[in-house]
Amino acid sequence: MSGMSFAPLQNDRFLRACLRQATDYTPLWLMRQAGRYLPEYRATRAKAGSFMGLATNVDYATEVTLQPLDRYDLDAAILFSDILTVPDAMGLGLSFALGEGPKFEKVVRDEAAVNALAVPDMNKLRYVFDAVTSIRKALNGRVPLIGFSGSPWTLACYMVEGAGSDDYRLVKTLMYSRPDLMHRILAVNADAVAAYLNAQIEAGAQAVMVFDSWGGVMADGCFQEFSLAYTARVLAQLHRTHQGAVIPRIVFTKGGGLWLEEMGHLDCDALGLDWTVNLGRARAQVGAHKALQGNLDPNVLFASPEQVSEQARRVLDSFGTPHQGEGQGPTHIFNLGHGISQHTPPEHVSALVETVHAHSRAMRQAVKR
Amino acid sequence: MSGMSFAPLQNDRFLRACLRQATDYTPLWLMRQAGRYLPEYRATRAKAGSFMGLATNVDYATEVTLQPLDRYDLDAAILFSDILTVPDAMGLGLSFALGEGPKFEKVVRDEAAVNALAVPDMNKLRYVFDAVTSIRKALNGRVPLIGFSGSPWTLACYMVEGAGSDDYRLVKTLMYSRPDLMHRILAVNADAVAAYLNAQIEAGAQAVMVFDSWGGVMADGCFQEFSLAYTARVLAQLHRTHQGAVIPRIVFTKGGGLWLEEMGHLDCDALGLDWTVNLGRARAQVGAHKALQGNLDPNVLFASPEQVSEQARRVLDSFGTPHQGEGQGPTHIFNLGHGISQHTPPEHVSALVETVHAHSRAMRQAVKR
Repeated sequence: MSGMSFAPLQNDRFLRACLRQATDYTPLWLMRQAGRYLPEYRATRAKAGSFMGLATNVDYATEVTLQPLDRYDLDAAILFSDILTVPDAMGLGLSFALGEGPKFEKVVRDEAAVNALAVPDMNKLRYVFDAVTSIRKALNGRVPLIGFSGSPWTLACYMVEGAGSDDYRLVKTLMYSRPDLMHRILAVNADAVAAYLNAQIEAGAQAVMVFDSWGGVMADGCFQEFSLAYTARVLAQLHRTHQGAVIPRIVFTKGGGLWLEEMGHLDCDALGLDWTVNLGRARAQVGAHKALQGNLDPNVLFASPEQVSEQARRVLDSFGTPHQGEGQGPTHIFNLGHGISQHTPPEHVSALVETVHAHSRAMRQAVKR
Repeated sequence: MSGMSFAPLQNDRFLRACLRQATDYTPLWLMRQAGRYLPEYRATRAKAGSFMGLATNVDYATEVTLQPLDRYDLDAAILFSDILTVPDAMGLGLSFALGEGPKFEKVVRDEAAVNALAVPDMNKLRYVFDAVTSIRKALNGRVPLIGFSGSPWTLACYMVEGAGSDDYRLVKTLMYSRPDLMHRILAVNADAVAAYLNAQIEAGAQAVMVFDSWGGVMADGCFQEFSLAYTARVLAQLHRTHQGAVIPRIVFTKGGGLWLEEMGHLDCDALGLDWTVNLGRARAQVGAHKALQGNLDPNVLFASPEQVSEQARRVLDSFGTPHQGEGQGPTHIFNLGHGISQHTPPEHVSALVETVHAHSRAMRQAVKR
């Protein structure tokens, strides 16, 4: 693995912005950018037969990862996979019924099931690492490749509930009534996620992101104890560099805006933010330590292209002009505040990408003048 | 109406705490306290045939409102009704399928439907006002009665979506693409909600609460423009007093913790908070202007009674000892951060009520010593 070499990177804006270094415009990528809103994705998905059929086939995963880059001038690619591959490798049996969310065959709700959990053999996730290497080769240096995983808490939500939930009753019942079992699940998850992300880095991922999609459903106090602490445990184990390159680490907690100050102390490079957060305030709170990524409401993309542009400019303006010049300073990576909707008109995404690049260039030049 | 007279109030702790006056313990009530987790509620519901059958029958509505007070030593009653009665009176046709959420027969998605909206004749909501008077009489001064409505934005969510939603795609599409239409819906809703709450006050409600259940799904900036501004428009029209008594006004925005400072400027007496908010921080932010209501995670009630008590004490301690003595100061009304779950074991609620009263008395005495 250590002998692997890839083409040199042509667009390093995303990596630079993650590391709080200046760029000539604000780099942009979109959560779930390879997905159902693209007709070419739906065509590949139909060939693959199922979501897991798509995610576990290296050629298909490579193909769909690159599709949005062929349409739009995006500044990063993200591995096509799912946040729940790790519990699947633990033997819980992940599947996706058509038009529905993820579902596990087995659930973890009692002491016996918790005690049976262990960090899975990473060979069971070989298909992911092979996809990373294949995508990195196919990118041929166009933009950097982001690897990712669900956070320990978010994985636990699905492992206990067995599927998505409205109220998180089962996972919270376990958390409040058997905190000892919940801590054991989270410790296994954290070590598994760390091993998984490190293997992605070794396979070619140039940045990694932890999706704490359900961190925001917890009570104050519980979030710190059951989510943040285990995200920190993941971060502490991650490779800082690989083959001489720094590997930026991004943490995204949906609904975590109230805990931004605490997240500012995480040992990571960037924080993802959802649309409820004011980027100007967030910059004042944590911009001295972390790059900020976000945070357009994905529903904006259902408005007209002119309105999409207006809202994108508002997001850029709310952050303000990023750091320019040498050294480190406050930087912004443009993204949505959550995954792009499958109902999004693809041509509206073009308006977004063009506006973000043009307006963020103009902001920098206005300051220089 | 003005000639109506009711029995004198025996327990005014809830009203005093709303007005930031000292009480000997922290008053407590629970959102959705009259509901499906109680077997006696399910029995009445079965007799009524449907949710709306229950809500529109004065005797049944009175019966279920008082049920939790007979079981638990609660410090307030809340009208048994739904947050969506106003759009139902606008002619949209509200119904509740068994085991499902609310549904409207007609939806408001285009200019013609928006232009057809008007503040409904309050006589269509007579069943609500009759229930208020009947409940107030039946309470016979035991505890105060709270009236309520959905907020203008929350009503609009259901009016446009036609039902609950995962992503609020339709209502946000209208908001981003036709803000003019959204503003018109919200203006009508605000005036209707104000008339509705005033009629509840005239019928005997001793406090009123605006439920902005879906305010927290909006982007920063949009929340202020499309929710907060219309909640303020409601508040500006409300009766301040009725028959010589001050009528406290409570605003609860689920997921609104990030906008607490802005909500601190609302012309109301108390703010409801969900469990993501740290009560100590909230007190520091807005406790000089507003009483705070909340915020135990309803899922805590699935843990053992001992664990319920422990978590309840944590919530009380996070607020700290409330104001004591003369005049006004920071006060706390204990509640859940959202409605109680239908799966809650009723005996766990007893543990909660006893702990809140006992521990909050002890906190006050510890300070005096």
